[in-house]
Amino acid sequence: MEIKIMKNIMEANDRIAELNRAMFKDRGVVPINVMASPGSGKTSVILQIIKALGTEIGIGVIEGDIASSIDAETIDKLGIPVRQINTGGGCHLDATMIKTVAQDLKLKEPSLLLIENVGNLVCPSTFDLGETVKLVIASVPEGHDKPYKYTPMFMAANVIILNKSDLMPYIDFNKDIFYDGVRAVNQKAPVFEISCRTGDGVREFISWLRERARPRA
Amino acid sequence: MEIKIMKNIMEANDRIAELNRAMFKDRGVVPINVMASPGSGKTSVILQIIKALGTEIGIGVIEGDIASSIDAETIDKLGIPVRQINTGGGCHLDATMIKTVAQDLKLKEPSLLLIENVGNLVCPSTFDLGETVKLVIASVPEGHDKPYKYTPMFMAANVIILNKSDLMPYIDFNKDIFYDGVRAVNQKAPVFEISCRTGDGVREFISWLRERARPRA
Repeated sequence: MEIKIMKNIMEANDRIAELNRAMFKDRGVVPINVMASPGSGKTSVILQIIKALGTEIGIGVIEGDIASSIDAETIDKLGIPVRQINTGGGCHLDATMIKTVAQDLKLKEPSLLLIENVGNLVCPSTFDLGETVKLVIASVPEGHDKPYKYTPMFMAANVIILNKSDLMPYIDFNKDIFYDGVRAVNQKAPVFEISCRTGDGVREFISWLRERARPRA
Repeated sequence: MEIKIMKNIMEANDRIAELNRAMFKDRGVVPINVMASPGSGKTSVILQIIKALGTEIGIGVIEGDIASSIDAETIDKLGIPVRQINTGGGCHLDATMIKTVAQDLKLKEPSLLLIENVGNLVCPSTFDLGETVKLVIASVPEGHDKPYKYTPMFMAANVIILNKSDLMPYIDFNKDIFYDGVRAVNQKAPVFEISCRTGDGVREFISWLRERARPRA
C-alpha cells in the first residue's frame, strides 16, 4: 500500500518535472539542481556563480529550506531575482514546488536558474525537478567515505564539487578513497575541488558551467 | 490521501516505539538515538563513548545507513555487539527496524544502546525509535546557522554536541549566533562543545551521559 502510493507520487512528480523541463527550454532557462548535506556550502557555491557569471548571463535563484529565509535574503541583497520555498518540514523540493515559483520569476534569456535544494544527501536525489544539471556538493570535513554511504546521490550527479579544500590540511581526508568511491558509482561526472573561502579551483568549475549555461536552441 | 497515509504510518511507528521503550526498560537498556548530518561525526562520537564507558557498562550499537557497512565493521573490530541496518535508500530509521534487530543483540545489563541513525538533519527527527535520549550532533564546519534552518531536529534534541571544535580557528563560526538559534527552539538540552579528534570537551559530555546510562529501576 505504502509502496504503491510512493510509486504514484514519484510518477506524478516525474510528469510535472518533464513539463518543467519543456517550459524552461522554451524560455531559454538552464536549471541547476544544487544538492548537498547541510553546511556543505550550497549557498557559497551559488554566490561564487553569481559573482563570476552575474554580469554575462541572467541568473535566478530558488531557495529551498525547511524553515527560514536566511539564504534568500543574502541573494536578494545582490539584486538577483530569488524565490523562497519553505517545505515546512519536508526533506526535499519537488517538481510542483518548482513549477509554482518558477512561473513568476522574471528571468532574462538566456538564464541560469540555480535551485538550492533542502540540505539533505538522501531524499532530494530521487525527485526530478525538471533540471538540466544535478550539481552535488561534498565538502572535505564531511569525510572521504560519503560516496560509499550516500550512493544514490553520487550516482545521480552530473557534476560534483568537493568544497572546502582549504580545510584539507586539518582533516584526515584521503582523496584516493573519495575518488574511488565516486568512480565506483559514477564514471561521467567531472569533479571540481574548490574552496569558496579562498577561491581556489573556482575558475575551472565556472568554465565548465559557462558551457552549460548556453541553452541549446 | 498522502497526508492521511503519512498520519497512519506515523501513528503505527509511535505505537511500536512505545513497545520498544518498554522492552528496553525491562532489559535495563538505555537507547540513545544519534542523529546528525552526513559527516558530522556520529561514528566518532560513538567511538569516544565506547572508549570512555566500554569497561564500566555494557554497550551495543545499531548502525543505520542507506548502503554500506563501513561503520559497523569499525565497531565490530572493537568487540562491541553491533547490528547493521541498511535502509536501501530510506532516509531514516524507524521503530520497526529497531524492534527487529534489537531482539537478537546480546546486551549485558545495564547497557547503553547507541543507535546511529542515517546521516540526515531532517527526516530522522520525526521518527520515534523508542529511545530514551535523542542526541543531535552539529559540527563547526557546517556553520552556525543550522539551528535556524533545521529547526525540528534541534527542537527534538535532549542533548546537543557541537563537534569538530578544533576547526574553529579555520572557519567563520559565530558561537553566539549558534547558541541563540539553539535556545530559540530548545531551552533544555545541554550543549557540549567537543573535538573527537583532539579529545577536547569529551570528558564533560561523558560525565553527563554516565548519569543517563544508569537505567532507572
